[in-house]
Amino acid sequence: MNKTIITLTTDFSIKSPYPAVMKGVILSLNPQTQVIDLTHEIPKFDIFTASFILSYAVTYFPKGTIHVCVVDPGVGTERKGVIIKCQKGYLVGPDNGCLSLAAEKLKPLKVFEIIPEKFNISSQTFHGRDLFAPAAAYISLKKDLNEFCKPLTHFNKINFPKPHLTKEGVKGEIIFIDDFGNLVTNISLSEINEAGFKLKEKVKLRFKGKTFKTRLLETYGQGRKGELMLVLNSFNLFEISVREGNAKEKLGAETKKVIEVMK
Amino acid sequence: MNKTIITLTTDFSIKSPYPAVMKGVILSLNPQTQVIDLTHEIPKFDIFTASFILSYAVTYFPKGTIHVCVVDPGVGTERKGVIIKCQKGYLVGPDNGCLSLAAEKLKPLKVFEIIPEKFNISSQTFHGRDLFAPAAAYISLKKDLNEFCKPLTHFNKINFPKPHLTKEGVKGEIIFIDDFGNLVTNISLSEINEAGFKLKEKVKLRFKGKTFKTRLLETYGQGRKGELMLVLNSFNLFEISVREGNAKEKLGAETKKVIEVMK
Amino acid sequence: MNKTIITLTTDFSIKSPYPAVMKGVILSLNPQTQVIDLTHEIPKFDIFTASFILSYAVTYFPKGTIHVCVVDPGVGTERKGVIIKCQKGYLVGPDNGCLSLAAEKLKPLKVFEIIPEKFNISSQTFHGRDLFAPAAAYISLKKDLNEFCKPLTHFNKINFPKPHLTKEGVKGEIIFIDDFGNLVTNISLSEINEAGFKLKEKVKLRFKGKTFKTRLLETYGQGRKGELMLVLNSFNLFEISVREGNAKEKLGAETKKVIEVMK
Repeated sequence: MNKTIITLTTDFSIKSPYPAVMKGVILSLNPQTQVIDLTHEIPKFDIFTASFILSYAVTYFPKGTIHVCVVDPGVGTERKGVIIKCQKGYLVGPDNGCLSLAAEKLKPLKVFEIIPEKFNISSQTFHGRDLFAPAAAYISLKKDLNEFCKPLTHFNKINFPKPHLTKEGVKGEIIFIDDFGNLVTNISLSEINEAGFKLKEKVKLRFKGKTFKTRLLETYGQGRKGELMLVLNSFNLFEISVREGNAKEKLGAETKKVIEVMK
Repeated sequence: MNKTIITLTTDFSIKSPYPAVMKGVILSLNPQTQVIDLTHEIPKFDIFTASFILSYAVTYFPKGTIHVCVVDPGVGTERKGVIIKCQKGYLVGPDNGCLSLAAEKLKPLKVFEIIPEKFNISSQTFHGRDLFAPAAAYISLKKDLNEFCKPLTHFNKINFPKPHLTKEGVKGEIIFIDDFGNLVTNISLSEINEAGFKLKEKVKLRFKGKTFKTRLLETYGQGRKGELMLVLNSFNLFEISVREGNAKEKLGAETKKVIEVMK
Repeated sequence: MNKTIITLTTDFSIKSPYPAVMKGVILSLNPQTQVIDLTHEIPKFDIFTASFILSYAVTYFPKGTIHVCVVDPGVGTERKGVIIKCQKGYLVGPDNGCLSLAAEKLKPLKVFEIIPEKFNISSQTFHGRDLFAPAAAYISLKKDLNEFCKPLTHFNKINFPKPHLTKEGVKGEIIFIDDFGNLVTNISLSEINEAGFKLKEKVKLRFKGKTFKTRLLETYGQGRKGELMLVLNSFNLFEISVREGNAKEKLGAETKKVIEVMK
């Protein structure tokens, strides 16, 4: 029989022992699981990035995978812990929106509130260890969720910003910057098509008051070394990229900054 | 049958191939193990931090887990390699103190010196690969330890600094700083109680000659955004923390610095 | 039965979700694999370092292990994706040289070109996810390679720089710098012997126009704290090291810089 996979997404950093402690807790309760690090390097307290990254990655895991996400600035307060049972898997974490974009992808069926009193919580600062890791282990053990949860009518959702058409083109924003310095925007092929742009076309990019000449490309290798490009990336979104370089550094970019693609 | 878990704690960094090489060695000798990274980002040559982090994490792993720790500035010299057989698991590494705080937690039963001549040591610079990884694999294979070890009367211990009561309160020190910038002290609830403080009470913190107003809290979320707090953390120790901020940066803190909690 | 091991070597960084997505793809196709991170922190686009690190690590994994390497600045262009079937395992990745030094170690038997049309490639920017991860999973499933590949006569090789003897000693270069700041050179014991040096001998090191007094040692611990040493390391190469210090910082070193060992 295949082991249930449990993935972990946190802002703890692998410099800390906290991800390993969660694995120890899970494996102590159910040695028949396979724990996979999604990433532990979410920017601290950044619920949107956690939600976005999780929603991207969950679709590549087998049906039935349990995804735990702990980006949890409100740990120990009245914010709820939730389990979202979906058609394609489970989501476990604080009800602060960090699970919501992934829930859309996995098709939510039912929401549960985790009852803290059913767990041995030895610290109000680390529910990843004392609440969410054991809850995930219980799911993997096929425990009845009603034994440690109660039903909830809904979970909290986070807003995914939408780009919009302007007179000159499309206006969007940077929603994620990866370790290559690629600036992932919220602009997808459908907006580019709607605005009348074509792949391989020369376009202008307006960013922080400046205008840059660039091209809409399908992959990095179509650019010249050092060229600034708009590439349709593996998220199926356009990203600003520099061939064998770093767009974040070149443009001094940050997430949430507005960008505009124009003729 | 469940696979034996082997955890790895080193100062190698995952930027290097050394942790993966240790896994390759272990899996070549015994494919029926599950290797878990505890952390590979211990500050270089920092035996105390390795010992402290290991002692925190080991208690969350199943009984019988084999914990390998390689923070080993004396590799290749006359320092011994040891195995500490405990009630709740095994500890494997150099006898420089890095195993000692964890041994206290796992209840030591017997100490063994690893005999280097029983191993194929191809370099005196990487005993993690040539000595400790194969020794851990042999333990997981239930090999008789006397085949590659000889008995030792004791292992080297490291000092865990104790806080002490002063006229005004409790004086301790920073023993670990996590990636959130939280400053973990050696002060536990028992000293706070002994000194007559109560949770949620306003206290003053003396650090590097300055005095800061703060509160003793149970979790981060009880503070206001940016507030400096003393929080009883998941180590069951008080830590200096900034709500959704970074106490290390705010106070310019380092490990081993003295802090005092006062009325 | 033992699970097939698949290792991953990339320049993606574990800050990104890309390594986890590759694991999700592999485990979705074949849950009976064990995926091991070799490292995801190869310097961006650095094909030589990837090739060198991979060639070092592969020898420690069990026979039959499948090694995937994705350092792939030409992704989506006409560069080929290849599988190198070897006596001791498989290598999978772009045909840009990143597999070639490892292939020498694993003894190549046959080369295959992966046919992209046999895969569901949803983005030309992430063949790690859409091409190499599924190809590795297919190998682990014992699928006939001819179903998704065609034979190739050769794979692209990368040059490993050779040191040479000079009138005064041996001239080599820095080929890798690890996270300790140790400067790994391309000089092995055979060149040192040929030049007439002996271990423990005092030698001079010429680097960036300056001359440094040092010793040829077998391990770090033979040096004095802060001493600059030439140590025969676990790659079986000489490295410039500072006892409990950082040679990279001390010398302002970078890879590809020339170094000379002299009487």
